[in-house]
Amino acid sequence: MPTKPLILITNDDGITAPGIAHLISLTQKLGTVFIVAPDKPQSGMGHAITINSTLRVHKTSYYQNENEYSCTGTPVDCVKIAINTLMKRKPDIILSGINHGSNLSINIIYSGTMSAAVEGAVEGIPSIGFSLCDYAHEADFTQASEYIEKIITNVIQKGLPKGVCLNVNIPKLKSDVLKGIKVCRQANAMWEESFDERKDPYGRTYYWLTGEFKNLEAKSEDTDVWANEQGYISVVPTHADMTAYDALKELSKNLEK
Amino acid sequence: MPTKPLILITNDDGITAPGIAHLISLTQKLGTVFIVAPDKPQSGMGHAITINSTLRVHKTSYYQNENEYSCTGTPVDCVKIAINTLMKRKPDIILSGINHGSNLSINIIYSGTMSAAVEGAVEGIPSIGFSLCDYAHEADFTQASEYIEKIITNVIQKGLPKGVCLNVNIPKLKSDVLKGIKVCRQANAMWEESFDERKDPYGRTYYWLTGEFKNLEAKSEDTDVWANEQGYISVVPTHADMTAYDALKELSKNLEK
Repeated sequence: MPTKPLILITNDDGITAPGIAHLISLTQKLGTVFIVAPDKPQSGMGHAITINSTLRVHKTSYYQNENEYSCTGTPVDCVKIAINTLMKRKPDIILSGINHGSNLSINIIYSGTMSAAVEGAVEGIPSIGFSLCDYAHEADFTQASEYIEKIITNVIQKGLPKGVCLNVNIPKLKSDVLKGIKVCRQANAMWEESFDERKDPYGRTYYWLTGEFKNLEAKSEDTDVWANEQGYISVVPTHADMTAYDALKELSKNLEK
Repeated sequence: MPTKPLILITNDDGITAPGIAHLISLTQKLGTVFIVAPDKPQSGMGHAITINSTLRVHKTSYYQNENEYSCTGTPVDCVKIAINTLMKRKPDIILSGINHGSNLSINIIYSGTMSAAVEGAVEGIPSIGFSLCDYAHEADFTQASEYIEKIITNVIQKGLPKGVCLNVNIPKLKSDVLKGIKVCRQANAMWEESFDERKDPYGRTYYWLTGEFKNLEAKSEDTDVWANEQGYISVVPTHADMTAYDALKELSKNLEK
């Protein structure tokens, strides 16, 4: 690794969101920052990629950074086009976020922020997704700065296991009451949805997705949700392998004969 | 379970695609079919959900089925709105596909077809995503019908482990040379992308995503890619837990102190 690490920064709330602005300001001193982020909010885009239409990229100057671009695509598109087209060499680390809102537990599969990090891991690049469990636009992203820097510095120095990225969730707490970092597994949880049914001005029905987060294992003390509730910054090592290994044997008995 | 199972069918190629049409025709005899599928192609949408805009649903009559709806959202939106709004009770099984093209290995994270099945699993409903490894619009979906029926019938009868869905990929082969079903794990693979750079009629640059699939463990004989290449229909039990369990210990040593 060269002495000054090359840091790719993206997010899913869009290039002008306060969360990415804080992440950029934090990391300027840690290496050379290269920004490629969506030109508009892309929350809930999961691992979506743009294959049925085209992508555009525009140079921006929001951060007086030598290399900063907005992209018309999803967070995963941003990572792909950064690595394959815009950057002269692969980044040493990819940072995504800081997301406005939780990516704990099952939220990871819907999350554009975390999908960008997972994409980095698939590409073999150490990657971290950061989320602050506070949905307010004026949320205070500064409280956990010390821990965010510690995690980034550690990953720059020691790397991550091949194919693994980190899902970091910061509780909405002041720095003096944050308890520290807890490495944990993804809690088993789900959303109980209901759709808000409305009529448009022409009398036609439309729906808004709404829902309530439901932790299915509230008593387990080794999950990200639990750690967050206790005041810890949760760190879940995450990979793209979704195989349910425990189910292989029984299924092969059922289906292969 | 009532004597006649309630079967929710969706896909990501859109409600009029030949793949879903064949799946519907196959399953009419297996239970009561309820169709909610995107009103347009939604390939590559991964686990995207619509949260920054609204959803609309329209009753259709493509299949002379009592309950069939097109939805303006993603495949995961279709599952959510079907279960929570359109259906009177939860389905006994969710089928997604048949996808036009492979969802082997890493494709699962980009796949709308498989994300619909994963969403079903998260909701606690036995779910299966089917894909035919043939990208042609006039692909022959009939060759593996016997196996597709066998898998669906087996899952209706025996269920699936909690939180697990199946990723079924059918090789492009005639029925008489298909070797059978192989239960396997998701291969470690990636896409080596390049972006095709073009100019629009106004001289502005735009990009098309292109890429080449790269199996990173071509010699492993327990993966879905290997099974497919050998002429088997691959079945990967899949869940939403993306925790990299092997990395927990080392990371906690590095980060928690």
